Parts: sequence; C-alpha cells; structure tokens
Amino acid sequence: MSGNSFGKLFTVTTFGESHGPAIGCVIDGCPPGLVLSEADIQPDLDRRKPGTSRHVTQRQEADTVEILSGVYEGKTTGTPIMLIIRNQDQRSKDYGNIVESFRPGHADYTYWHKYGVRDPRGGGRSSARLTAPVVGAAAVAKKWLHEQYGTVFMGCMSQLGDIAVPFEGWEHVPDNPFFAASGDLELIARMEAAMDELRRDGDSIGARIDVVAKNVPVGLGQPIYDKLDADIAYAMMGINAVKGVEIGAGFRSVAQRGSEHGDELTPGGFVGNNAGGVLGGISTGQDITVSIAIKPTSSIRTPRRSIDKAGTPVMVETFGRHDPCVGIRATPIAEAMLALVLIDHALMHRAQCGDVRVDTPKIA
Amino acid sequence: MSGNSFGKLFTVTTFGESHGPAIGCVIDGCPPGLVLSEADIQPDLDRRKPGTSRHVTQRQEADTVEILSGVYEGKTTGTPIMLIIRNQDQRSKDYGNIVESFRPGHADYTYWHKYGVRDPRGGGRSSARLTAPVVGAAAVAKKWLHEQYGTVFMGCMSQLGDIAVPFEGWEHVPDNPFFAASGDLELIARMEAAMDELRRDGDSIGARIDVVAKNVPVGLGQPIYDKLDADIAYAMMGINAVKGVEIGAGFRSVAQRGSEHGDELTPGGFVGNNAGGVLGGISTGQDITVSIAIKPTSSIRTPRRSIDKAGTPVMVETFGRHDPCVGIRATPIAEAMLALVLIDHALMHRAQCGDVRVDTPKIA
Amino acid sequence: MSGNSFGKLFTVTTFGESHGPAIGCVIDGCPPGLVLSEADIQPDLDRRKPGTSRHVTQRQEADTVEILSGVYEGKTTGTPIMLIIRNQDQRSKDYGNIVESFRPGHADYTYWHKYGVRDPRGGGRSSARLTAPVVGAAAVAKKWLHEQYGTVFMGCMSQLGDIAVPFEGWEHVPDNPFFAASGDLELIARMEAAMDELRRDGDSIGARIDVVAKNVPVGLGQPIYDKLDADIAYAMMGINAVKGVEIGAGFRSVAQRGSEHGDELTPGGFVGNNAGGVLGGISTGQDITVSIAIKPTSSIRTPRRSIDKAGTPVMVETFGRHDPCVGIRATPIAEAMLALVLIDHALMHRAQCGDVRVDTPKIA
Amino acid sequence: MSGNSFGKLFTVTTFGESHGPAIGCVIDGCPPGLVLSEADIQPDLDRRKPGTSRHVTQRQEADTVEILSGVYEGKTTGTPIMLIIRNQDQRSKDYGNIVESFRPGHADYTYWHKYGVRDPRGGGRSSARLTAPVVGAAAVAKKWLHEQYGTVFMGCMSQLGDIAVPFEGWEHVPDNPFFAASGDLELIARMEAAMDELRRDGDSIGARIDVVAKNVPVGLGQPIYDKLDADIAYAMMGINAVKGVEIGAGFRSVAQRGSEHGDELTPGGFVGNNAGGVLGGISTGQDITVSIAIKPTSSIRTPRRSIDKAGTPVMVETFGRHDPCVGIRATPIAEAMLALVLIDHALMHRAQCGDVRVDTPKIA
Repeated sequence: MSGNSFGKLFTVTTFGESHGPAIGCVIDGCPPGLVLSEADIQPDLDRRKPGTSRHVTQRQEADTVEILSGVYEGKTTGTPIMLIIRNQDQRSKDYGNIVESFRPGHADYTYWHKYGVRDPRGGGRSSARLTAPVVGAAAVAKKWLHEQYGTVFMGCMSQLGDIAVPFEGWEHVPDNPFFAASGDLELIARMEAAMDELRRDGDSIGARIDVVAKNVPVGLGQPIYDKLDADIAYAMMGINAVKGVEIGAGFRSVAQRGSEHGDELTPGGFVGNNAGGVLGGISTGQDITVSIAIKPTSSIRTPRRSIDKAGTPVMVETFGRHDPCVGIRATPIAEAMLALVLIDHALMHRAQCGDVRVDTPKIA
Repeated sequence: MSGNSFGKLFTVTTFGESHGPAIGCVIDGCPPGLVLSEADIQPDLDRRKPGTSRHVTQRQEADTVEILSGVYEGKTTGTPIMLIIRNQDQRSKDYGNIVESFRPGHADYTYWHKYGVRDPRGGGRSSARLTAPVVGAAAVAKKWLHEQYGTVFMGCMSQLGDIAVPFEGWEHVPDNPFFAASGDLELIARMEAAMDELRRDGDSIGARIDVVAKNVPVGLGQPIYDKLDADIAYAMMGINAVKGVEIGAGFRSVAQRGSEHGDELTPGGFVGNNAGGVLGGISTGQDITVSIAIKPTSSIRTPRRSIDKAGTPVMVETFGRHDPCVGIRATPIAEAMLALVLIDHALMHRAQCGDVRVDTPKIA
Repeated sequence: MSGNSFGKLFTVTTFGESHGPAIGCVIDGCPPGLVLSEADIQPDLDRRKPGTSRHVTQRQEADTVEILSGVYEGKTTGTPIMLIIRNQDQRSKDYGNIVESFRPGHADYTYWHKYGVRDPRGGGRSSARLTAPVVGAAAVAKKWLHEQYGTVFMGCMSQLGDIAVPFEGWEHVPDNPFFAASGDLELIARMEAAMDELRRDGDSIGARIDVVAKNVPVGLGQPIYDKLDADIAYAMMGINAVKGVEIGAGFRSVAQRGSEHGDELTPGGFVGNNAGGVLGGISTGQDITVSIAIKPTSSIRTPRRSIDKAGTPVMVETFGRHDPCVGIRATPIAEAMLALVLIDHALMHRAQCGDVRVDTPKIA
Repeated sequence: MSGNSFGKLFTVTTFGESHGPAIGCVIDGCPPGLVLSEADIQPDLDRRKPGTSRHVTQRQEADTVEILSGVYEGKTTGTPIMLIIRNQDQRSKDYGNIVESFRPGHADYTYWHKYGVRDPRGGGRSSARLTAPVVGAAAVAKKWLHEQYGTVFMGCMSQLGDIAVPFEGWEHVPDNPFFAASGDLELIARMEAAMDELRRDGDSIGARIDVVAKNVPVGLGQPIYDKLDADIAYAMMGINAVKGVEIGAGFRSVAQRGSEHGDELTPGGFVGNNAGGVLGGISTGQDITVSIAIKPTSSIRTPRRSIDKAGTPVMVETFGRHDPCVGIRATPIAEAMLALVLIDHALMHRAQCGDVRVDTPKIA
C-alpha cells in the first residue's frame, strides 16, 4: 500500500533495482487452480527483453523467470506467487560519471530531493528494467482472463517520432522490430533509417502506442472513482516515460459533437466505439482501446546542461546502453498493465456481483 | 476501498444520487488544527454549480454545503469531516421516458448489465452532480496545502470544440462564462455564438481543460506505481466525460527528440517544463501542468438510435436540463481532483520522509 | 483508509460525534439487488439504544435511522448506502466541568496529545455512541449473509463483574435487561441488585460477552495476515472498552494438551469446537465463537485523581448520564462487528474463488 | 491487499511455503536513510530459528537472511527491501502419509475446502515457518523505532501448560530455553521435565506469552477502527496457533470496578497501567503490554480420529519434526508483530500530525 504494489485484489508488489542482484514481484490474490509454469510467463518476457534488435539497448539479459512460491504440482494454490529474475549484465561502471549530477529528464533530481539517498546503479529503481516483473505478473493475469472470458490483448506502435504507422493488421506486429501493425516494408525501412540516424546523432525520439483488449465482459469497473478507465489511466501513466493517455476517441473528443461521439446501439450491438469500451467507468463489452504517448529516452549522448548536487553547472552526457526509443519495448508493457487492471476489476466484480455471466445477453 | 473512496491518507468517500435527497462525502484523514468553516468551501462549490450562465444546465441548485462533523470551535479535530449538500431541484419526471432504454454515450447500459438494477433519477450515481462533494472536499485540501506550502491551483478552458483559446492570463478566467484565460472579447463572443447554435441544434460539444498547481514541494510521489502523475491520470480520467489526460508535453512528446524534451537544469532552475513538474513519478517543484479532453455531453435532444432492455430498437431523445458542454463546468472539478491528489501525496511523503522541508535548496 | 473505515470490500466509513448534530456511516460495496429499507435496520439499533432499562444510560435517543442513498425502489443499487442518525439529546453542559482535565480511563489524555485539539462534547468521537452507525451497517450485512448462506448471529453476557452467567439458551436473551442467556430469575435479580448497588456507589463494573455466528460457509478467511480470526480480533478489540478477545477455547488453550484441544473429525463432522470455527485463519463451517472482556465504564461519580492540561493535580468526578456497565449494551455491538467481518470475507472469498458453494460436501 | 500483506504504510508482503525453495518478504515503505545490513536482522531470526534446544523442532535451518534490494551503500533507499531466506531442510517425505487426510487442529481441512488445492509440503503456507520473514521485517522496524524514539521490545513466556512462570526480570530470558523471565532454576527444571514427558507421550501443550514495548510515543493510533489496540489484536491473533489476546488488564477487567481499573493521573504520570498503554485506541506513552494464548501444537504422534478427502474415517498420527510447544518460539514472533504495528502507526501519525514530538511534555 506504500506505492510499490499494483492492484487491490490481484496485487503485484515489485522489488529490485536495475543493477542489483535480482528483480521480481510477489503476486497476491491469484485465484487457485490455474495451471501455471514458467513456460506461460517467459514468452511475454522475451517480447520485452533488451537486445532483440539493434534499435533497442544492447544490454544482455536473458530475463529468465523463476517461480519461487504459490504453485504446487503445476497449479496455483491461491497463495502468493513469487517471480524472480536475476540480473546478469550489471555494468554499473557505466554510470560512474553521473553519480554526482542530475541527468535532464531523469528521476535523479527528484529521488535525491525526496529520499536524500540515491541509488545510481543503472537508474536504480527508476529504471524501465523494473517493468519486467510486471510483464511476468501480467502473463499470469492474461492466462486467467483468457481461460475465464476468452480475453486477449494486442498492442502496436502507431507513431514513431513524426512517422505515423497506419494500422493494417495485428498479424504484422511480430514481423518487424517496432511492433508496427503494418506490412509496408518501405515504411519499416524508413523507421529503421530514422532510428539509425538517431543513434548516430546520440539522440532519442518519442512514440505512440495503441493497446486493445478483446472479449472483455460487460460490467467491469466501479462507477466512482475506481472507474475502469481511471484505473487504466493510472496504470498507463505509471509506465516509465508515459506523458499522455487516451481511452477511445481520446483528445479527438474535444472537437466532436455529441451526435457524433455517443455510440448508438442497435440490436446487433454498438455502432462505433468512441467510448473505447467504457461508459460511466464500466466496461461495455466492446474492445477496450487505449493509446499512450511515450517521451523520448532521457539518456542520450548529446551533451546537456545540468547541475551537480552542490548546484554547480555541469555538462552531462550519458554513455552506456540505452534504448534510443523507449517506446519500442513499451508495447508488451502497456498490454501487461491493461491485463493487470482488467483482472483486478474482474475479481472486484465477482466480489460484488457474483460470478461474471459471460453468457450475458451481450449485444455488442 | 470498494470504489467510492478517493485517496489513501486524505480519503474522500462520497454518497448520493443526482435526484436523491442529498449528496455529500466523508473526509477521513484531514490533519487536525486547520481553521475551517463552510465559508472556506462554498466559493469553490459556487464556481461549479449549475445555472450560472445560459451555457450550462438550468437546474436550480444552491449547492449549499453543511459541515456535520469533524470541526469543533472552528478547527478540524483530526476526525472525519462530513459534508452534506441537500438536493433541491429533483425533477425526476424529466427522466421518465428513458427508464426502459439506454441513452447512447451514457452509463445506463453498463449499470444495467453490472448491477441488474438501475437508478434513473437524473442518472443516479453516474451524474456529474456527484462532483460537487469532491469540489467541497478539495476546498479543504486546498486550504491545507496553501497554508503548508503556499500551493495554489488554477484552471482554464483551452479549447471549446474546434475553437482554440490561446492562454493570455489567469486573471481573465472569472470574467467570462467559459473559464477562458483570455481577454479577447471577440473570441468570447464567438464561443457564445457557438454555444447558442448548439443549443438550437439540440447538440453538444467537447472541450479541453488545462490545470496547473503552483508552489508544489519537491519530492511528492512514489516511484512505482503510485507515481504522482499516475495518480493524477487516475483522478482526471475519473471525472465524468474525460477521455484523455496529458502531463506536461503530453502527446507532443511523441514527436519530440530527447535533446528537446528533457528539461535542462541550471543553477537558476529548470529550463522549460516538458515534464509538467514530474520526473520519475515524483514532483520536481515546478508547476504541475495537466490537460484533459472532455467528450461532448451525451444527453442531447437530437434523436438517436438505441435499444431498450428487451433489445428492441428505439429512438432516444433526451429532454430535461443538460449542459451542452460539460467541459465548461469541468475546470473547478479538475482543479479539485488535482488538489486531492497532491494532499494525499503530501501526507504520504510526510509519513515516509518526515515533515516536508519547504526550505529545501530548491533550484526550480 | 485513514482509520475511520472498516472492511475492505464491504467498507463502512463512519462520521459524527456524540453531541454533534448527527452520526452515521457510508456503506460502500454492498451487493446490488438486496431488498432493503429502514425497517431492516431499526430493530438492531433499538436493541443497542440507550434508555431501555434503568441499568443503562438515561440519555434519550430514538436512534431513528434514515437511508439517504444507495437504495432505489426498495433495493440496493450497488452504490454507497448512507445511513444517518440525528442526535437529539445533546446535553453538552454536563461535560463542561471536565474540558480542562483528563478523566482517568478515558481518551481525553490521548486525544489531546495526538491532535492538540479536543472535542469534549460527550466524549466527541471516542464516545460509545459511535457504535450506533456500525450496528446499522451490520444489519445490512446480516440480511445479506442470511439470504446467501442462512448465517445468523447471537450474543449474550456470560459474566457481569464477578457474577458468572451460565448459558441456558438463546431464547432467554430478550427476556432480561442484561442479554443473559439464562432463565434463572434469582440470578437475574442478583445482577439487578449488583447494578443498583453500583449506581448508588457511583462506580462501574466490567463484563464478559460471548457471540456466535451459525451457518458460516467453509473457506472464509485468508491464510496469512487477513485471517478470519485476526480480523475478528481486530473488530472486537476496536469496540470501545474491550480489553481482551478469545476465539474458541481462547485462554483455556494454554493449559490444554494437543490431544485434547485439536478437534477430531468424523464423517458426521467435527467433534468439539475448541477451534471456535477457524483453522489456519479460515472458517471450518462450524459455529464461530468469540468472547470479549469489557472494562468497567470509565465515567464514574467516584472522585478520582487526575491532572489538567497544565499538569496540575485535580480531582475529577464525572456526572452526566453513563452506563454503569458498558458491557450490557455491548452484545448487539459485538454481533454487529462479527457480521461486518464475515461479509467482508465472504465477498473476498467470492473474488478469489468464485461464488461460495453452500452445497459443499460440508461435514460439520 | 489480498491478505498476504501486513501494514498500511510499512507494508510487509510475504511469500513462500515451508518446504518450497525459499521464503521471504518485501518491505514497502521503510523510511530512507536507515543504516541497515543483514547483521541487523540475523540476531532476531536466530532467536526464532528451530533446533536451538531439544524442546523445539529439530529441523535444521540456518535461516540465513539476505537483502536483495532496497539498500545501497549500507542505507535504506526508501524503495522496497526484499528479504529472502532459502529453505534447506525440506524433508517432504515426512508428510507423505497425510496428504489425503486432514490433521485435526490443522489448516488442512480449511485450505482444501477454500482452494480446492492443497500444498502438503510441510504444511505449505500454513506452517509457522512463515513467521521467519516477519521476524526479519520486524528487525528493520525495531531498528527504526529505536533510533527515532528509543522504543524497545521485550517478551517472555508467563505460563507453560499449567505451570505459571512468575515474572522476575527480563535479564533471565536469554538464560533458559523457554524465554522465561525467571532465574528460578528449580522452576526451569520443572518446565524441562514437563516438556520431556510430553515428548515421550507424543503430545503437546499450550503457553501464555507476554510482550511489552517501552518508550512508545504518546499519540499513536486512530480512534475508530484502526485503534492501536485493535491492530495489535489483529497482529497477535494472526500468529499461528494464537487463540486469545489481552491488552493491559485484559480479561481481569471483567471483575474490576471502574474505581480500580481506570488508571489515575498525577503530575508524575499515570498510577498503574490497567490500560496497557492504550486509551481510546491511542497510545498513552506508558508501556504497551500484551498477552497471548497459544494453543498446543496440532501435529502430535498420538493417533487421532479424522477423515480423508472422500469423507472416510481414518486415524492420523503426525510424525516428522514438530515443536511440542509452539509457544516456546512464539516470544520473538509476538515481539515482531508488535513492532510492525507500532511502526505502521508511527508513520500514520507522522502523515496526519507531522513529526512526532518525542519531547512532548510527557507525564507518563
């Protein structure tokens, strides 16, 4: 409850630092009887892990997950599931030069002022590496949601810097290093070129990511404050480097008229999904659609003005291994956060209204 | 903890329905010794209340707040503060015609599927009227934050449908019915004309609202998950009709380069505020800047396709008294939510790190 | 979450002071569709209310409960239920003489040191009067538990000072002013004489109360920390004046051998109930049995040594209307707390394991 | 929030099973800047660990604790502290014979009915072995409380079965295998003989444990529900095998008169401590005094009637390595739980009322 736990009923508590001995999490509240092994979790971790292409950090981490508790004879027991990932490539020397000063755009400055202590080992706890345990925990959530309701999660990059990536189909996502839902090879080549240029420049770029959950039961969410969309916004804005979140039509709603925005209903279901699958904080049974804005990586080689702890001006360059676009690996992370929100609300719904009737006369 | 409470340490639990006898909230966790009376709370409620111009709902509500507990001899005692606002203008007959069908864009459909019960009295609990108690609770939070740290809150409408409202100065906000930070009378006239036309058309429009907190101490927020910005996103997306949230540069970050986005530091402070006052989930001491997208009001006179509880097609027109742009009254609500997030994090910070040192060698 | 809420999923947040305008609570998380009106709640309040015999405080309070939200057309809607009880007999002048000094055994001293503010109106928030809203909220919980599982709650006084009250049968409880489960009229007369003597002496006495829940489903409770018995202990020790809590054999367990204490099982069920219906923190399906020790009322007419705020010695006598044995009215309160614990665990169980199967091959 | 976490602000989340690969916990909310290493934690674990005398289980466990996160250069960073203890002596074969039936007095029956899954490895999660991580976490809490307020914790066994152990002085506790605060060698010999006889008989016995916290600041605790004593009761009843909890005079209060029970005040402080250091749910600054009843160990060699999963009658004898009196090792565990409650309330107090003034004109 002190900040490092996510979820009320399916509660994930993480621990660890980027360059400490291990990272991981404890999952409390997973329903019993779910068939589970590391093999259910590893594939999602592999999608997120570093070093998969030249466009992401070259840090070498197998990100091998180990289940230390909560599973007996291949089934969850209802007690806490502990996931641990041992760090392998801890080159803390890379960070030696920035211990005394604050990297622009980084948490260095705020940690220092908050805690009076700062763990510079790879950014310590503020590193995006801490999203790995979350992706692991979400793999458990996804499996349960899929078994219960058939829920599935998809995500893609829809913009890289100023390059828009028109959606063509989910099947393209695994075929390129950007999680682009596009089979346009010329476009992919343009993205690769842009990334190569950035790397040469020692600079970085932002991205826009879209995530979708399909086959979500009607009725998940609490009307006031723990709205499904409010919790999604919390989850997404909590991902490192995220600066904006949209549900459904998002900021396009501003210029819409009510007669255009409000999704009409017919006996065949909703006509349109400006709502993004949420009305009044509660799921409609349509796809949940979310978009997020990811800022450019703060760690860049380009020298930047800063100050040290004494307040003296310094120039800071960040060497080491960094993603020139943290947005690239954000897709599986955003899917993971969405899954964690949905399982929590599914359990909460079950508490208050009993077992979810998936056979609801659903019209969407 | 079941959805209707906001905040962990300064916890606001609301109750009531739009057309029930009363609405209100219990504030648990307000520090003792704060000088407090209804006079500290009423002005914020008056900024939000209906009927202040022809551009908002004509429902007649004095929204008079009464403190029923937690204050003794003009000071908070540290025990729960109960605020109650009695509903006056409960014309539920207006809603009679929509009890059996689902209004597009409304929570009718989802409430019905979730609870199997639906309170149609003015939208029941899903009504924006339920933001009144929150504004009341936030007035208490604002007073405490101002006394402790000098924190102040401002908000304005920066876009009405497709009319952008360039920021000129906070002093203009009270001088027009739109919370526009602009003294451009021609622009205001254009906004009024647009609203009048909408009303004639029986339609509605969206809006973009910006809110800012100034004089926020450095160090508020938890690094992983209860980040300050994550909790702000949760709070904002929880406001009725909000579909998008941005912190700092928001979606503009997508096309920015790291060398542009990352705010440099000098001995005189940060250069720029793309971060929106939050780095790594913790406040930097700069202004917290937030923008939200508000969808067009769902209740419109224009007939729309829908279905009834039996799934039969119907046409729905919503009569009654509605804001043609719910965004107009959203400004004080968004300020309120921001204040509630900040006091909660201020108290959490005090728990973990001791009294906030406002005399921190702050360089921002 | 700041102390004044009880329960995680069926959350009761109280407000009010003994001599303020009103007391009450907000119930968040009550399942929808429960038929509910004030008539379901008032009887439990009437059992607890003052003035029912000469052995309890003569304060005149009708304790009439009003439902202000959360119920529509006679059914709970799933949204917060607000209960309000207006205070009628607020003779705060009675307390005038003790504002500056600390009554022995009372919360005066600790409130003063904690908050630096003290609300002396009838003990303010520390008054046992604040148990009324809890009894109201529990009436809702009891109704739901009874409808779902047939659960019923009973309680009785088993000791008044040094007078033991042997259990004869629940049917006797309403027939005497002490909640004694005894039809022994001579014993009741002895209790009445003891109380009359105490009143003459201006003194008070303690009591022991037993409460039982029958027809509790198997499987409620979390194995580590939020054990069913741990939450019961929390609930009971939280009642004003309680100094001890036992589950099942309680302190008798100390001198028992394992071969005596551990309840054997046969195909017909458990043999004995030393466990008090809880093993490993989880309900067995047997009766939940709880005993509590209630200290003698602190407000007595007998002069006692104390100090004032300046630390100067003073003598304190407490006039006004007080229960000479707060234990007498504690029986319905203890039943109420037990009901609140059970509904919370029932909902939590439903979240984690799905709908409770009351047709479990239960052997107890 | 799903049961396996303890504390709201200093939150300990445990994981692991008795015979799994490892047990441990994540501590979230420890204030930054505390000097901390394994050497601060190991001594408390050593007091609790098995195999220290012939009167406790002979399981061989070094219980060596390792800090995996949250400490940098010897100081806590304010981020989660992960403690891990690897299990060494996992003879699960010992339990093979009881997998299909339910041991009387054990959690076997309730786990099976709750989860439909049961982890028999050494009792799985219901084993008292899971108190080890708590003792580790509490060592951190104790260190912080001692540095802030000088708080210290003591505990002793005051009764073993029917042998009362009169309190002589804390200095005797480490000198005998029972945590007896007595230097009476004849008494200790009698306790040893009783234990030896029990072991020969294949039976077990209960115990009474007293714990005390000294130098507790005035003002810790919330008046309604999260009372300091309510949270202590929750913590204590949550320890394996505890069936009763008393604060201060406890069940003796039942027969006390108000003129005897209510502790008078003089300028020199309170006269007596029937309150056990808590009035109205808030600490008085006096010693916090708590007693608990521990039931006899359920795992005994004496054959007992039970049933198997099919409901067929069976006889159960539990071989393997068990404490004939689990109460013996309960003393450090009870101290630990008390420390966890106090640090949580100390942080909560700091949130609501600012830094605790230890220089309060304390008169106790």
